[in-house]
Amino acid sequence: MFKIGLCQMMGSKDKEESRAKARAMVSEAAKNGAQVVALPEMWNCPYANEYFRPYAEPEDGPSVEFLSNLARELDIYLIGGSISELSDNKVYNTSYSFDRSGNLIGKHRKVHLFDIAVKNGIRFMESETLSPGDKSTVIDTEYCKIGVAICYDVRFPELSRKMALEGAKLIVLPAAFNMTTGPAHWDLTMRARALDNQVYFAAVSPARDMKGVYRAYGSSCIATPWGEFLAKADEKETIVYGDIDLDYEDSIRQQLPLLKHRREEVY
Amino acid sequence: MFKIGLCQMMGSKDKEESRAKARAMVSEAAKNGAQVVALPEMWNCPYANEYFRPYAEPEDGPSVEFLSNLARELDIYLIGGSISELSDNKVYNTSYSFDRSGNLIGKHRKVHLFDIAVKNGIRFMESETLSPGDKSTVIDTEYCKIGVAICYDVRFPELSRKMALEGAKLIVLPAAFNMTTGPAHWDLTMRARALDNQVYFAAVSPARDMKGVYRAYGSSCIATPWGEFLAKADEKETIVYGDIDLDYEDSIRQQLPLLKHRREEVY
Repeated sequence: MFKIGLCQMMGSKDKEESRAKARAMVSEAAKNGAQVVALPEMWNCPYANEYFRPYAEPEDGPSVEFLSNLARELDIYLIGGSISELSDNKVYNTSYSFDRSGNLIGKHRKVHLFDIAVKNGIRFMESETLSPGDKSTVIDTEYCKIGVAICYDVRFPELSRKMALEGAKLIVLPAAFNMTTGPAHWDLTMRARALDNQVYFAAVSPARDMKGVYRAYGSSCIATPWGEFLAKADEKETIVYGDIDLDYEDSIRQQLPLLKHRREEVY
Repeated sequence: MFKIGLCQMMGSKDKEESRAKARAMVSEAAKNGAQVVALPEMWNCPYANEYFRPYAEPEDGPSVEFLSNLARELDIYLIGGSISELSDNKVYNTSYSFDRSGNLIGKHRKVHLFDIAVKNGIRFMESETLSPGDKSTVIDTEYCKIGVAICYDVRFPELSRKMALEGAKLIVLPAAFNMTTGPAHWDLTMRARALDNQVYFAAVSPARDMKGVYRAYGSSCIATPWGEFLAKADEKETIVYGDIDLDYEDSIRQQLPLLKHRREEVY
């Protein structure tokens, strides 16, 4: 059993301000007993194509260093949401994870880019600016393996399944659904991934910024291996906490052995 | 666009009675304009291990002939729920499908056997009696391809995904969830399969028989490619109707191209 804290923070156009906010919220989560703390998608960059390149940093840039220091200072595992990464002149939507000593223990580049054009709804073409990652990401911690994916990655059941089969007992998803797909699909998708894969599934969104360039759905949440919500936020800035009970997860997997009943040879 | 009718019927221990009830309900659905009609799981056999073998019939038995005749007489596509099949001294949970001429156009043997033992809840071990099928099933109709699976098969996202990738625009699931897993997981799972695969997903349950050996959850339903319920029953005997709008489905797939955005090489 360990406690996770999801920081549903309101970012800023000013990176220093975003860092200060992240520091304050992650510190509060740690003070309240969270041993694993997560930040949202693009917590230090406005969520719009025009900002991704100007805000991008290499892996040895200041934001990664900031996150590493924060994990070490607070003695926590930190799943650093995602930031814009510059590498070989390409831009990625990247999540860095750190252990209690501040060591980088995982790096996930968003695999599925969000290209969507809903009639009378959202239009967003990430692929105009971003490059995709090409692998799934599972990190090791002293509690359990944790899968990390980003936002639109959750739409593809194959990826969560792959992480679960690789041993993830918890999946953490920095994500910023919008006001079209959020109300329609957020709850359903997070709960289904948890239930189907018999994992805890934690999604961490930015708070909704009505003055910002992008309005996130918020609703950061933790779903249990039985497909229920353990905790769920509204749209405001807040920290969502939940106890990740690995014994409970094991008992679900024993009673309803979905992962064992798979018929790999049929698919 | 075509209309589907789901016959949430109350079966009987008497096969003649079950056939009469099936005939009455399928006929009513056809009269009301359904061009595709479906029956529930084990509509002519009590849902308990002790009945599966005594009630089993070979493919050339009377129940398959009955279903074939019914499809031809009513000039409909009939997805014949499932019945207990005897083949080479093995027993299968099998769904037969027929075209308007009564030709057998699909045969699905339940791939995933339901073996579960929930603490203070349901215990059921299908594998004590039944043998599993070893393939997925997609049938061709004049409207679209239709995937057919049975009950516990729905728990495995891989199978629905396979049917969708093979071209199914509608998946029909004869199913009999129980009073533990039904309230917990039925709605969530049916909606998630529809949403993730951008298909219509129709689940057809027996009505709940409070005097019978098994209490089915009922709740036969049709979920849309946007993950919403188009129609949903309570637990009583009834027919659920829905218009399967393939143009709407295409528009969803264009606006939010999940099936195109899959990263097969990553999984």
